[in-house]
Amino acid sequence: MSILETIHTPQDVKNLSTEDLYTLCDDLRHTIVETVSQNGGHLSSNLGVVELTVALHKMFSLPHDQIVWDVGHQCYCHKLLTGRQADFSTLRQTGGISGFPRPSESEYDAFVVGHSSTSISAANGIAKAKALSGDDGYTIAVIGDGAMTGGLAYEGLCNAGRSHDRLIVILNDNQMSISRNVGFMARHLAKLRTRPRYVRAKRDFVTLLSAIPLIGEPLHRFFVWWKYRLKNAVYHSASTFDDMGLHYLGPVDGHDLPALMRALQAAKELDRPVLVHVETVKGQGYTPAVENPDKFHGIGTFDVKTGESTAKASPNFSTVAGDQLCKLAAEDQRICVTTAAMTGGTGLSTFARQFPKRFFDVGIAEEHAVTFASGLAVGGSLPIFAVYATFLQRAYDQLLNDTAIMNNHIVLAIDRAGLVPDDGETHQGIFDVPFLSTIPHTTIFAPSTYDELAITLKQAVYETDGIAAVRYPKGGQFPHLDLYKPDYKPFTYLRNPSARTVVITYGRLFSNVLQAAREVQDTAPVSVIKLTQIHPIPQDVLRIAGGYRRIVFFEEGSRAGGIGQQLGAQLMEGRYRGNYELHAIDRFVPTCSVEDGLRACGLDVDSMVAVLTKEDKPRGRK
Amino acid sequence: MSILETIHTPQDVKNLSTEDLYTLCDDLRHTIVETVSQNGGHLSSNLGVVELTVALHKMFSLPHDQIVWDVGHQCYCHKLLTGRQADFSTLRQTGGISGFPRPSESEYDAFVVGHSSTSISAANGIAKAKALSGDDGYTIAVIGDGAMTGGLAYEGLCNAGRSHDRLIVILNDNQMSISRNVGFMARHLAKLRTRPRYVRAKRDFVTLLSAIPLIGEPLHRFFVWWKYRLKNAVYHSASTFDDMGLHYLGPVDGHDLPALMRALQAAKELDRPVLVHVETVKGQGYTPAVENPDKFHGIGTFDVKTGESTAKASPNFSTVAGDQLCKLAAEDQRICVTTAAMTGGTGLSTFARQFPKRFFDVGIAEEHAVTFASGLAVGGSLPIFAVYATFLQRAYDQLLNDTAIMNNHIVLAIDRAGLVPDDGETHQGIFDVPFLSTIPHTTIFAPSTYDELAITLKQAVYETDGIAAVRYPKGGQFPHLDLYKPDYKPFTYLRNPSARTVVITYGRLFSNVLQAAREVQDTAPVSVIKLTQIHPIPQDVLRIAGGYRRIVFFEEGSRAGGIGQQLGAQLMEGRYRGNYELHAIDRFVPTCSVEDGLRACGLDVDSMVAVLTKEDKPRGRK
Repeated sequence: MSILETIHTPQDVKNLSTEDLYTLCDDLRHTIVETVSQNGGHLSSNLGVVELTVALHKMFSLPHDQIVWDVGHQCYCHKLLTGRQADFSTLRQTGGISGFPRPSESEYDAFVVGHSSTSISAANGIAKAKALSGDDGYTIAVIGDGAMTGGLAYEGLCNAGRSHDRLIVILNDNQMSISRNVGFMARHLAKLRTRPRYVRAKRDFVTLLSAIPLIGEPLHRFFVWWKYRLKNAVYHSASTFDDMGLHYLGPVDGHDLPALMRALQAAKELDRPVLVHVETVKGQGYTPAVENPDKFHGIGTFDVKTGESTAKASPNFSTVAGDQLCKLAAEDQRICVTTAAMTGGTGLSTFARQFPKRFFDVGIAEEHAVTFASGLAVGGSLPIFAVYATFLQRAYDQLLNDTAIMNNHIVLAIDRAGLVPDDGETHQGIFDVPFLSTIPHTTIFAPSTYDELAITLKQAVYETDGIAAVRYPKGGQFPHLDLYKPDYKPFTYLRNPSARTVVITYGRLFSNVLQAAREVQDTAPVSVIKLTQIHPIPQDVLRIAGGYRRIVFFEEGSRAGGIGQQLGAQLMEGRYRGNYELHAIDRFVPTCSVEDGLRACGLDVDSMVAVLTKEDKPRGRK
Repeated sequence: MSILETIHTPQDVKNLSTEDLYTLCDDLRHTIVETVSQNGGHLSSNLGVVELTVALHKMFSLPHDQIVWDVGHQCYCHKLLTGRQADFSTLRQTGGISGFPRPSESEYDAFVVGHSSTSISAANGIAKAKALSGDDGYTIAVIGDGAMTGGLAYEGLCNAGRSHDRLIVILNDNQMSISRNVGFMARHLAKLRTRPRYVRAKRDFVTLLSAIPLIGEPLHRFFVWWKYRLKNAVYHSASTFDDMGLHYLGPVDGHDLPALMRALQAAKELDRPVLVHVETVKGQGYTPAVENPDKFHGIGTFDVKTGESTAKASPNFSTVAGDQLCKLAAEDQRICVTTAAMTGGTGLSTFARQFPKRFFDVGIAEEHAVTFASGLAVGGSLPIFAVYATFLQRAYDQLLNDTAIMNNHIVLAIDRAGLVPDDGETHQGIFDVPFLSTIPHTTIFAPSTYDELAITLKQAVYETDGIAAVRYPKGGQFPHLDLYKPDYKPFTYLRNPSARTVVITYGRLFSNVLQAAREVQDTAPVSVIKLTQIHPIPQDVLRIAGGYRRIVFFEEGSRAGGIGQQLGAQLMEGRYRGNYELHAIDRFVPTCSVEDGLRACGLDVDSMVAVLTKEDKPRGRK
């Protein structure tokens, strides 16, 4: 029996000797590598926080103390130590363990996370509520340096430092861009600082440290900036974090268990907001991941021995979008592309290489990305912001106030629209259509195929004004759609002369509708309307649909505020007297495959067939 | 003829002597004080930037160069110098000059503003587009230190510094919290720094400066932090802004025209992103405003001689909300109230004094405010976030992802809901209902009267879970509603036995509907349903309304995604066979009084009467 198998609650961690803790770390790494190699998931970040997580559970008492993991994809060790070991093989599978913290899954998960830069604000609130109610528990936010580029993290830091609560921010610095020369001194200094009364000896170091030269230019300015601030914290008596009201401790070697425990003990004793700066190595303990941390950040299945991916690479909407943007940019100097730390995910790696002057990765800063794009439009560029549907939620006001009022022309290339496999509630792209539809001067396209994606992206750039959004799912085209030829029109009408029912849909769901229509062709024949421009709804669609006795709308998106609801309202105002049925998503959808998610929401072929063949009883009044 | 009267375009400013520029500043102050005393508006901030605005127009050439004013309420001088002098007496009136920059009003206004902290991102985009197209114009962002508390400003700074464009950020520092002792040295140093080759002499000052002690604790930590950074910029060779990639110049006396012009000239010559730190005095030149800058920040009409307000103070929804929150907090220790720099505006000054430990003004940081509130809820508090409807747009993702998925209970006290007088497109509260309705686990109340506001606030806190929003307008209760007694129910049904039409509405519009119903009682009698809980729509409303031949919905809010559209969709799905008409707002509404705005949107009593008495021809098919 491994040490890990003896851990049923965090209390069991507290009872282990330091030697056993090291063994526990090995067990955790082994389990995580094995599971992720089978299920896919986040690897590098989880291997980087093994010792940190163990140290946190050793030094704190959950759930009385609470941890908010920023972004949350580094929570695997935490899950393995908090009663979810037996089910861990179901990680990221339908009905299984989520890859992100979920309070609904365990009392040891304090806060739902999935979007970046929220942990400090959330922990600030939890710590404040504890203080107000006389609860002496600690609240801990664990945040990576990447998440520090988000404005919300800055707002959180500014406010957290104003409190006097038991709040500990762990800055998980895994970029290693602080000079190795400084490293030793920094650690030495950290050891002194983590003693409750370290101040006495500190001044002596300043003279010594001032002789060490500053380091060169890293990749991003804001990394420079934070790193400089951190180094400043070592050099100077008042660090940036101290100025903000947080007591700075560190840097601490994030793979040195005793050092981590000492730092956390010191943080506890300070009894006020503290920032502990921890240096970790992404992928630590698994060589392929250390050598290629980006590849192993979020990865599909792979061979543990070689590190080689065992998932097949295949064409997908992201690469099609990236290729089309390259093509457009080659022909038009005004084309610019912006992304918010999603270069690879949105298929833009090639664009970034080919057009470095017209490619802007702004970091995890969706708000800036939109207002910046709107500024680009004012200056005469043709800006495209490539973003995941779920993260665009962050820029609602920037779209509405900073873009739509001026009717500035920006294009949104919305990836991961609709159900997203394996990541759960926080990553489903089912709200973009509802919230974009509330914004005047907005057009939304929902291509069903690769060809349509390329066409609509071009239409969005050149034939649309205001905000033009093109939304497409993660992964590949659904089956049966390769035979369908897009006709460059806002919608496609497949008329069945014997039909009294018309089915309306959009996006990849068109594939399911086509299959369902085929299955019911003898028993309950239907016509089909596939929307490509989904908002505003083409008025001809209302005219055509109005000729049918029954209209059924299938939508892979939120019912509230979705296109189906908009169509329903328009039919009502247009005095349509037939029957209208809307089947859409009316819940947060937890971790699942796309197939399972569609089935759970009644949007799979079988459910559609059941709807289309069921007796259509009138139930209206008047 | 005053000097100001000779200024028709910014070019005329460039032709003036320095002496004439001083006179021009006097003229500007005079005109602004006179106009604001008549029309109300922003005074302190405009008087603070008179010299800065004149210097900008003297040193730059608009519209080739472009200025983005952050928040934008400090644009009056700019408007007076850019061809809008003759119409300036219409400031903030229906059809008149907007109190905020509006490109639709003038080619000299580069960007729509109204919400805070956007200028750096927007200017970054404009400057980048200029650089890409070979345009050698400058782009200038003018941002106050208050706006620096917003996360978007931080994201903008981090990214602006990565560029090599002709971008100038003017930091308008009007808090005067840098120690006077440092002031002299700082100015001296600034003079040196604004010479293009200042580096040589800088080192000599560091030794001297290091002897000056740090200053004490100002009001807010983040002010300390920025001020410390600024002072750091004076002390050290690499300032925060330098680290971010922006060349730091300053501080400069913002009322010293030659100093300003020298600094701006230096900024131009540097030919790369620059931050110019300008110190100004709010209200400069008008004693009552200097002595009481907060009172004169945004003010109604006043007597120029005495500075006394001539607008009558009267009860309003904000004070009623503030009083009720005080009452609830006195009885329940769990009640906490958060605001984002809107303490006075949301009627919370008393609350802030009475319950300082449970009151949190987080600065201009709506995102943090919501995630923080959600954390408070996790910790067992009962958090209320008081916010203007238009600014809540900034926290959409924090409501959806950080609150609703967990079904955390937070209360939103949404002030300035519906049309907002005098401020125009950027300040109308007409999108909160649409975007909140897309978020699961959300309940929205729209009280029509003071009594109902008090009741629904309590219901939101104690009888609702998830997100509970109570929205109410700026100003006072509409007439005729004092006779109406709220009945603690989700809706009120005023049945007219002879009616075949039912009118549905909510909020203060209920007053107009009551008056219209009275006017048509003999010719076209109607029943009335007034919603108090507007979302989810109470199902009894559908049942009752379904019994009428005609349903007419009047909504003071966006048609797209509003309650009227939701009701229409529900009626359609429920197979209602009568006629449904929705009258709501389908445009951005420019500066106007509430009365004029309602009339323009067809929501005044006369328009309602016209709708209710018009012949009701069927136009449906099938």
